[in-house]
Amino acid sequence: MQVYLDNNATTIVDPKVEELMEPFQCQMYGNPNSLHQFGMEVRPHLKQAVDKLYAGINASDDDDIIITSCATESINWVIKGVYFDHILNKEKNHIITTDVEHPATIATCKFLETLGVEVTYLPVNENGIVGALNVEDAIRPDTALVSIMWANNETGAIFPMKDISRVCRGAGVLLHTDAVQAIGKIHVDMEDLDVDFMTFSAHKFHGPKGVGGLYIKNSQQLTSLMHGGEHMGGRRSGTLNVAGIVGMAEAMKLAKEGLKYELTEVKRLRNKLEDALLEIPDTFVVAPRELRTPNTILISVKGVEGEGMLWDLNKRGVAASTGSACASEDLEANPIIIAIGSDSELAHTAIRLSLSRFTTEEEIDYTIKAFTESVERLREISSSDL
Amino acid sequence: MQVYLDNNATTIVDPKVEELMEPFQCQMYGNPNSLHQFGMEVRPHLKQAVDKLYAGINASDDDDIIITSCATESINWVIKGVYFDHILNKEKNHIITTDVEHPATIATCKFLETLGVEVTYLPVNENGIVGALNVEDAIRPDTALVSIMWANNETGAIFPMKDISRVCRGAGVLLHTDAVQAIGKIHVDMEDLDVDFMTFSAHKFHGPKGVGGLYIKNSQQLTSLMHGGEHMGGRRSGTLNVAGIVGMAEAMKLAKEGLKYELTEVKRLRNKLEDALLEIPDTFVVAPRELRTPNTILISVKGVEGEGMLWDLNKRGVAASTGSACASEDLEANPIIIAIGSDSELAHTAIRLSLSRFTTEEEIDYTIKAFTESVERLREISSSDL
Repeated sequence: MQVYLDNNATTIVDPKVEELMEPFQCQMYGNPNSLHQFGMEVRPHLKQAVDKLYAGINASDDDDIIITSCATESINWVIKGVYFDHILNKEKNHIITTDVEHPATIATCKFLETLGVEVTYLPVNENGIVGALNVEDAIRPDTALVSIMWANNETGAIFPMKDISRVCRGAGVLLHTDAVQAIGKIHVDMEDLDVDFMTFSAHKFHGPKGVGGLYIKNSQQLTSLMHGGEHMGGRRSGTLNVAGIVGMAEAMKLAKEGLKYELTEVKRLRNKLEDALLEIPDTFVVAPRELRTPNTILISVKGVEGEGMLWDLNKRGVAASTGSACASEDLEANPIIIAIGSDSELAHTAIRLSLSRFTTEEEIDYTIKAFTESVERLREISSSDL
Repeated sequence: MQVYLDNNATTIVDPKVEELMEPFQCQMYGNPNSLHQFGMEVRPHLKQAVDKLYAGINASDDDDIIITSCATESINWVIKGVYFDHILNKEKNHIITTDVEHPATIATCKFLETLGVEVTYLPVNENGIVGALNVEDAIRPDTALVSIMWANNETGAIFPMKDISRVCRGAGVLLHTDAVQAIGKIHVDMEDLDVDFMTFSAHKFHGPKGVGGLYIKNSQQLTSLMHGGEHMGGRRSGTLNVAGIVGMAEAMKLAKEGLKYELTEVKRLRNKLEDALLEIPDTFVVAPRELRTPNTILISVKGVEGEGMLWDLNKRGVAASTGSACASEDLEANPIIIAIGSDSELAHTAIRLSLSRFTTEEEIDYTIKAFTESVERLREISSSDL
């Protein structure tokens, strides 16, 4: 049996999504900016896609949703755009983020540091989150931007964005949230959560790879990352990836429609798996269940090195990860667990299991068996090594 | 009959390309950075794709070909990367380009001007190109970069890149060429043409939209436009768009294989069309045929406004354009013809017809008839207006 439990890294494209995308390669291939039939026939489909995106995150007509190529692009855009608009030759010079953000945020902040920007990387608490009070304490008169993920990719920990929003609004500081791991997993409503910028990526919610988005509240100023033609009102240039946009929009619609299932059935399967794995002696799951996205488990198995566990699970057909795929070529200790303040052994023994609405009960039953056997085998080898 | 003659705006995806892309949505959907079966099964396909790209442009193993989301991204990356590496806090402060570049180049240069960079926009001659001597004359001790397109999107005019390369090498100035309109239309060989950076876009050569590339000679330093995870050796972060990369690579392979057909059969059809249209009195084609890509005609029809012509052709099923799709929402005079130094009437009467290997003889015969009838009808209306 093949079981895919790495949905925080990427997801299967929903067949309904693929079906909608398919006509835009060899049939309706016109450039939507073209003023002829081949271009114009594409436009209603794009319009419909954009409508789905607005509905999907409940954005207002006054807001912008701009299509990008991925969340990494969106995140680079927000942070560098704020640099050009509010820091360079301006009075602001400080950005606040956390030390468990996605590499796109961390690396972009590190880059801005080379340009003289000061960045505060807030540590997370034992639940894997940063409290709003910590954000409040870190805000300075020259703070331009707070950039905090809505849900963590490795632990699934959900950050208190509403409280953080209140703090930022009170201080008059711009707020960006990386919602890559939030869409389709928790309630995402931009009328409800007051942030300036919000980023997302289609391939994390059963859409295609190579397309993402940036929500911009009140269509406010943000210097472009990609200058060029007048696509997207001149905000993000480059010929529109029509198939990708149509696919992402349908995936967003399905994510919203599937949220109830995610919060009940996916959560039930996740809890079943988690309960079973916690029965294995000396296992530890990061972050309380009620503070996590419904699909994620980050579990440490004492005495079992994460990489070894990954390979053993893989041989049994179960796809998991030791952490972010974006950093997986770097076989170090899990930096999130280090950040949470746990000891180094825990950090070297972390395995992430992330479900989706395509995960079945049968797959969970199989995984419980496979995981338990893997731990037994590896602990046996480990003890015979002594 | 529907005839698509706007291939410089975008192209149909080759069905062979679509066929190769298809499995990477719902079947082999793993993140290639993941260390399990779902990730690993994707890797040989990526490797094969990258090999096709290197072979397609004859790049050396010492060079980098980095996948981006489009040529606009690649162009922004080169110009802004050079800014960070060679201009900001360095002794260089000057960029040379032409005034007929794609909006991605022009707008990025305009943005850098707001940061204090000096940019020279070289005018083109009556053939729509800039000579190497003009580039040489414009180079200053503080010139960091020359960025010149290989072939123009509107006229098809081919720039003397080998001569320009010699001039830049002689002066020790970095050279970037936007080869978006060159791939698949002329001989593109990076062992033969010595440039530092070369940009391309899949959807201009029968690949998918939303994916492009940047060639970097000798894998030289270039500050990233997108910071983040260690994708592409950390040069361009963001989860790999596997379907898009596989599609672009196959499209590149087919473009190289099809070059002979392009330079003979597509050129024959283009010439047939051009000869027939030039028989209409008071018509004028921009740039000598032997200095153009084999698929492009930019024709002015005296007394017939370009927009009107476009609509009339569209009603007859022929898709053409009045110029770049990237600027088509701006119904102004064609800026390339203005740049060439022709009069304003000519600039308002330009129609671009761009063929591809999918264009048939029957379509060309139909277009000749449709175009001739459109001109007759519109000239009649125009004269009865008097």
